[in-house]
Amino acid sequence: MASIPLKLYSNAAGFIEKIRKIGEEDPRRIVHSTKVGLALTLVSFFYYFRPLYDGFGQAGMWAILTVVVVFEFTVGGTLSKSINRGCATLLAGALGVGAEYLAGVCGERGEPVVLGLMVFSLAAVSTFTRFFPNVKRKYDYGVLIFILTFSLVAVSGYRVGEILELAHQRLSTIMIGGATCMIISVFVCPVWAGRDLHFLVAGNIEKLAAFLQGFGGELLAYGGDESGKNVEKSFLKGYKSVLNSKATEESLANFAWWEPPHGKFKFNHPWKQYSKIGALTRQCACLIESLNAHSNSKSLAAAPASEFRTRIRQPCVEMSAECGKALAEIAAAIKGMRRPPQSAESRVQSAKSAADRLRGMLRNSSLPQKPDLQEVAPLLVVASVLIDVMKCADGIAVAVRELSREAGFEGLKPGEAAQAHRHGIVSPVDDGDHVVVEIQAAAEDSPEKKIISTT
Amino acid sequence: MASIPLKLYSNAAGFIEKIRKIGEEDPRRIVHSTKVGLALTLVSFFYYFRPLYDGFGQAGMWAILTVVVVFEFTVGGTLSKSINRGCATLLAGALGVGAEYLAGVCGERGEPVVLGLMVFSLAAVSTFTRFFPNVKRKYDYGVLIFILTFSLVAVSGYRVGEILELAHQRLSTIMIGGATCMIISVFVCPVWAGRDLHFLVAGNIEKLAAFLQGFGGELLAYGGDESGKNVEKSFLKGYKSVLNSKATEESLANFAWWEPPHGKFKFNHPWKQYSKIGALTRQCACLIESLNAHSNSKSLAAAPASEFRTRIRQPCVEMSAECGKALAEIAAAIKGMRRPPQSAESRVQSAKSAADRLRGMLRNSSLPQKPDLQEVAPLLVVASVLIDVMKCADGIAVAVRELSREAGFEGLKPGEAAQAHRHGIVSPVDDGDHVVVEIQAAAEDSPEKKIISTT
Repeated sequence: MASIPLKLYSNAAGFIEKIRKIGEEDPRRIVHSTKVGLALTLVSFFYYFRPLYDGFGQAGMWAILTVVVVFEFTVGGTLSKSINRGCATLLAGALGVGAEYLAGVCGERGEPVVLGLMVFSLAAVSTFTRFFPNVKRKYDYGVLIFILTFSLVAVSGYRVGEILELAHQRLSTIMIGGATCMIISVFVCPVWAGRDLHFLVAGNIEKLAAFLQGFGGELLAYGGDESGKNVEKSFLKGYKSVLNSKATEESLANFAWWEPPHGKFKFNHPWKQYSKIGALTRQCACLIESLNAHSNSKSLAAAPASEFRTRIRQPCVEMSAECGKALAEIAAAIKGMRRPPQSAESRVQSAKSAADRLRGMLRNSSLPQKPDLQEVAPLLVVASVLIDVMKCADGIAVAVRELSREAGFEGLKPGEAAQAHRHGIVSPVDDGDHVVVEIQAAAEDSPEKKIISTT
Repeated sequence: MASIPLKLYSNAAGFIEKIRKIGEEDPRRIVHSTKVGLALTLVSFFYYFRPLYDGFGQAGMWAILTVVVVFEFTVGGTLSKSINRGCATLLAGALGVGAEYLAGVCGERGEPVVLGLMVFSLAAVSTFTRFFPNVKRKYDYGVLIFILTFSLVAVSGYRVGEILELAHQRLSTIMIGGATCMIISVFVCPVWAGRDLHFLVAGNIEKLAAFLQGFGGELLAYGGDESGKNVEKSFLKGYKSVLNSKATEESLANFAWWEPPHGKFKFNHPWKQYSKIGALTRQCACLIESLNAHSNSKSLAAAPASEFRTRIRQPCVEMSAECGKALAEIAAAIKGMRRPPQSAESRVQSAKSAADRLRGMLRNSSLPQKPDLQEVAPLLVVASVLIDVMKCADGIAVAVRELSREAGFEGLKPGEAAQAHRHGIVSPVDDGDHVVVEIQAAAEDSPEKKIISTT
């Protein structure tokens, strides 16, 4: 019998551990929970101490309801729902009053028929509009509230005069609730969807970069020597989350649309461009998925390697490493909200020339007498996929340059650029770290580690 | 000036065309809109003609609110929201009464403090639980309603006696609203999330099959003759939607969990297995994405082809076609809710032996004097990716067999099996059509064409 408390205890410990983990993954979750509690308590007290209109029921209830339903994790989410709710209530209320008036004209017998027909047709048509992709993306909640308010007003059975008073009460309470949410959401530790999207996209590119850099090292390690087998392989898993990032990215982009300018994100920031970069990133991740199938391949590691294989391995290593470094520089540039540096472009160029070199080696004339196709084939496959990856990385570079132009990112300052030149080609990892440190200093509240965890 | 009405007219025509398209893509959307209108009108009239309790405001409002918020496209969605709402209201109401009582004990001065603290802490803790993946998946809406109801009851300022009466009213109205939604949702042209999920997964496998079969044909067409260039290429695009099907699949699986047994889907249908099959399907689509990069490749089409290249192309064509046919048979089996036929397994086997044959051709001894690597490389890449696709198809076959065992699908009837044997290897496309026709006859209301369009 003594084991039951023990079991309970271990269960509770496991549960607490889980809570700790969820909170640690993104501490903003704890802050958000507190913010919701705060907003709700504030609104509750307002109505608890000032039973304004006809007691609590009608008026205060709507404020509490609004706070609970409208408060979202990101600022954009909260704004989108608040604005949708406010506008839809106003519009539907006005239409409802019109419907009520029209029905009144039709006499006592016609009234319920006319009202029923109007409620039915408006609800059906509005529900159908929720299937429109554009409406669904931005105004889904508004349409819901529109149907709700119209039905409530139309069927309320009040006269027009009474309705106007009721509408005034209800709108003011909804506005108090919505304003409380918006103010707390924007001014107390705000979670900007746009910022999250920005760092999510940059983080995804970084994951691809980490894979490619690691993969290049691994290819090199497979020179036949056993030491290659102890290479750190955590990089092989990072890119997997990129493949399923589309849904998160889309909802963040939708929310970002509603947000006011914040930090370095100006009015009219090109949020659509992020979806374009995201799509290319996922395409690249897809190619990497098929590379990954080969990274553990025995045929690739088969030793001893022939001289020809060692020769054609070199350009592969170079392509992987250079693409990885280029992507890492691009990711760092996005995070620092700067234009991607020239060096990223030159790295893609040197990857391209490595590919050309490889093509040359495969020419008939430069082949050894009779290459062992079985031995060479896996490397050829890796090379071919890497060439596709390279094209994809090039596409990402172009899309990011477009983004930085549209968003007005700054280039490196003259001093920094000079420094980069003096060193010749800057070691990209150092460069990356440098920029990352800079951002973290500029915006301590949300280092990118946390943002990645929200995916 | 005459152009303005003209422009308006063309705009309106475009809009109507758009509406028609959305309705045509999935006619169930129109039915759903009508169902929502019907439910809302029914509930409205109920309260319009019988202003039960204290007039319309308090009681009837909740029924309309429930209908608008709870009615979802699928049965599972409606059930999940209704049940969440009902249970959460009950639980939060009880807790709220307790809180009210406790606060009353603390005297007039302590009451608001105790109430405020309770509302704050409960709202914060509940909001935090919404970040738990399990809670988010199934009970997100319930937690929302829990916070709402608890706050409303706790801050209402009524005495316990009054609250109990209020709770009775509110619960009964919510139940009337919820029951209306559930009954209409289940009995009037139901849209089962489980059924949609089933056909979505089968349809995705079918798209992969179509690509592989088409790709095999295209490889063959690239024998150097020009006729290959006119091959129908629509199959090359079909698989793209598979890559982004995860979000739809997940939400359908969550809703399916709430649905009662329906049609051939029994109680405890293994819905989780669909996610497993779906993940494998997406992995396979990812591999196909990198195959697709080669399908338009000039190097693959370069003519005239050497004799060696023609020789190693044959097993590639076979692998692609056999995998495609196997997947087509598996998809047809899922749609028909039957066990995948033996022939699917034997097709995967023959693809494997084609791969073995290819490996043999690459052995040193069987090579021509000095193969042109540049010419052969693209084919080797295609072969290598096809081998990965084959492994993936094998995985899908295993997962589907597991599904059919857990779900208790039937095998082919003796007569059909005999027929299949007599023909030797049945042409898979015919076989597929046969089964498809059978399902359509069994369940006319949702042929798979429509289901795919809901993705």
